[in-house]
Amino acid sequence: MARFLAITGGVGGAKLALGLAQILGPDELVFAVNTGDDFEHLGLHIAPDVDTLTYTLAGVSNTDTGWGRQDETWNFMDALERLGGETWFQLGDRDLALHVTRTQMLTAGQSLTQVTAQICATLGVTHPVFPMSDDPVRTTVHTESGPLAFQHYFVRDRCEPAVRGFEFVGIEQARLNPAITRYLEGPERVDGIIICPSNPFVSVDPLLNLPGAHAALQSAGVPVVAVSPIVGGVAIKGPTAKMMQELAIPNSAAEVARHYGALLSGLVLDEQDRGLDGTLDTPTTVANTVMITLQDRVDLGHTVLRYIASLA
Amino acid sequence: MARFLAITGGVGGAKLALGLAQILGPDELVFAVNTGDDFEHLGLHIAPDVDTLTYTLAGVSNTDTGWGRQDETWNFMDALERLGGETWFQLGDRDLALHVTRTQMLTAGQSLTQVTAQICATLGVTHPVFPMSDDPVRTTVHTESGPLAFQHYFVRDRCEPAVRGFEFVGIEQARLNPAITRYLEGPERVDGIIICPSNPFVSVDPLLNLPGAHAALQSAGVPVVAVSPIVGGVAIKGPTAKMMQELAIPNSAAEVARHYGALLSGLVLDEQDRGLDGTLDTPTTVANTVMITLQDRVDLGHTVLRYIASLA
Repeated sequence: MARFLAITGGVGGAKLALGLAQILGPDELVFAVNTGDDFEHLGLHIAPDVDTLTYTLAGVSNTDTGWGRQDETWNFMDALERLGGETWFQLGDRDLALHVTRTQMLTAGQSLTQVTAQICATLGVTHPVFPMSDDPVRTTVHTESGPLAFQHYFVRDRCEPAVRGFEFVGIEQARLNPAITRYLEGPERVDGIIICPSNPFVSVDPLLNLPGAHAALQSAGVPVVAVSPIVGGVAIKGPTAKMMQELAIPNSAAEVARHYGALLSGLVLDEQDRGLDGTLDTPTTVANTVMITLQDRVDLGHTVLRYIASLA
Repeated sequence: MARFLAITGGVGGAKLALGLAQILGPDELVFAVNTGDDFEHLGLHIAPDVDTLTYTLAGVSNTDTGWGRQDETWNFMDALERLGGETWFQLGDRDLALHVTRTQMLTAGQSLTQVTAQICATLGVTHPVFPMSDDPVRTTVHTESGPLAFQHYFVRDRCEPAVRGFEFVGIEQARLNPAITRYLEGPERVDGIIICPSNPFVSVDPLLNLPGAHAALQSAGVPVVAVSPIVGGVAIKGPTAKMMQELAIPNSAAEVARHYGALLSGLVLDEQDRGLDGTLDTPTTVANTVMITLQDRVDLGHTVLRYIASLA
C-alpha cells in the first residue's frame, strides 16, 4: 500500500487534494496545509487554507465563491456592518461556528493540529489534515504601497498593490509540524510527495521555508512531484501570474520548476504547455491540469500518482 | 427639567425602561444595568441584561422570546451543533455580531461602559446606558445541586434546581460605575431613582451590593421608587416567585418592600395587590403593572414619575 503526502494551500490545491482523496484512503494520504495566511480577525483565529481544504474534503465548500461554505447566510455580517464592524473579510453565519470553535479551543491551550483534527472529525473528514506548523507564521506581502498582512493584501486590497517580495514573520521560531515530519522519515515514511497546484510564493513557500523543512522533504528520498499552478502563462485562480510579472519572473510553468529547483523530481505541465515538455532541467509530464469537474480532479490525481510511480 | 436614574435587569425591567424612554428625553433619563449575569461563553463576553435593554430601546428586541433580536436566524448555532459545540445558550446570527464586537473591543482594552456607549450609538439608542460596573461581578446561584454560574442556573438548567442563596463573585473588588455615581451627587444629581420590576435577588441586588452603592443611592436624598415584580403572588416573568418560595420568603409584593427596606421611598403595587396598599411600612401606590402593550409601558412610566413627584 503506497502512501503519499500532499502539500496544499488554497482553492487550486484543494481541487487536486479532493481528487487524490477519491483515490486514496485515509491511511494512504495525508495533507500538509499552509498556515502562513492565518490571521486574527474580530478576535477570532482564521485559518483560510486549512478551512478551504477541510470544507472541500467534507463536501461543504462553496464552489461558486471558492471560499467559505455552501448554503451560507450573511446575517452576522449584516448586523456587524450596522454595528460599524470590519466587513472586508466575509464570514458566513455557518462558517463563523468553525472560527469561534477553533478560537475557543486554541485559547483553552489546544494546538492548531489538535483543533484541526477535531474539526475534521466532526465534519466527517477522514484523511489526516495537518497545519504546516503549530507555531504562528504570518505572511507579509511587501508591496509598492508598503508591507501588508497577507489577508489585507489578498482580500481587502484584492491583490492590487504590486508585489516586491514576501516575508514569513515568525518562521525562524516555527517548527515543521512533527506530525508531518513523521511521514518523511523512518517506518512511516511516505512513498511520494505531491505539491498541489497552489501559489508557490504564498501557499507553498511558507512550509518550505520552515527551518529544516526543505531538507526534510529532500532527505525523505522519495519522488516529489508538483503540479504547475501556471497554465499557458496564467494562473487558473489567484494572483500567482500577476505576482511573477511584478517580481520580474517570466510567468511560465518553466519558472515554477525553477522555483522549486532541486526539490522536484518532476513537474506536471498542462497540455497548453506541452511545448515546454522535455525542455526543462526538471523532468516533466503533460496532463489536463485545469480541473472543472470532479472527474477532472480524480483524473489528475491518477496522473500524478502514476507519474510518481514512474519516477520511483 | 426633572432627571431620573432607572435601575434595571432583564425583560420586565426593560419593559418599564422602554415606557420611561418614551416619556423622558436622553438628558432626562439614564439607565444603570445589572452585569451580574454577564459571562464568558465560546470565548465571547455576553452581557444579557445590557443587551436586553439595548435591543429593547433600539426597537430590535425579540418580543416573542423575551431575549435576543427580532428577525433572527440560527445558522451559526446549527453549524456549531454539528461541530459538537455548546448549544444550551442560543446565540442568533445577528445577535452574535454584537457579542463579537463587544469582545473585540474589551480585548482591545476598552471598558464595558465605553463598549456599551458605542454599541448604543450604532443602534440608535440615545438614552445613556451604563453597566452597573466595569469590573467583573459574576452571580453564583447556590442551589440544592451545588453552586451554579448564573446562566447555567437560568438558561441551561431552566431555574429548576432549588435556590439556597446567592453570591456575587468579585463584588468586593468591584466599583459602582463612576458614570452612575455622577448622577447620585453634586450638580448632576437626578431627581428620582426608579427600581424597575426586575428580580430583586439577581437583577437588582448585584448593583445594590457593590461597595458603597446602597449608601450612595440613599445619600442622594431623592425619592427611590420600585415597581414590584411580584403581582398577585407570582412573577410576571422569570423565577422571582419560585426563588422566594425556595428561600422560605412569602412570595408577596410585601416582601419586595421588605427586601429593599429603608432604601425605598415608595413601592408601586399592581392592582391585584390593592389589598396590601397602606398595610406596609413602605408607602405604596397602586397601578396596572402588567405591561402587555407599549401603552401599558408608557402608562406605568407616567404613574411612576407622578408618584416620585408626590414623594419629593
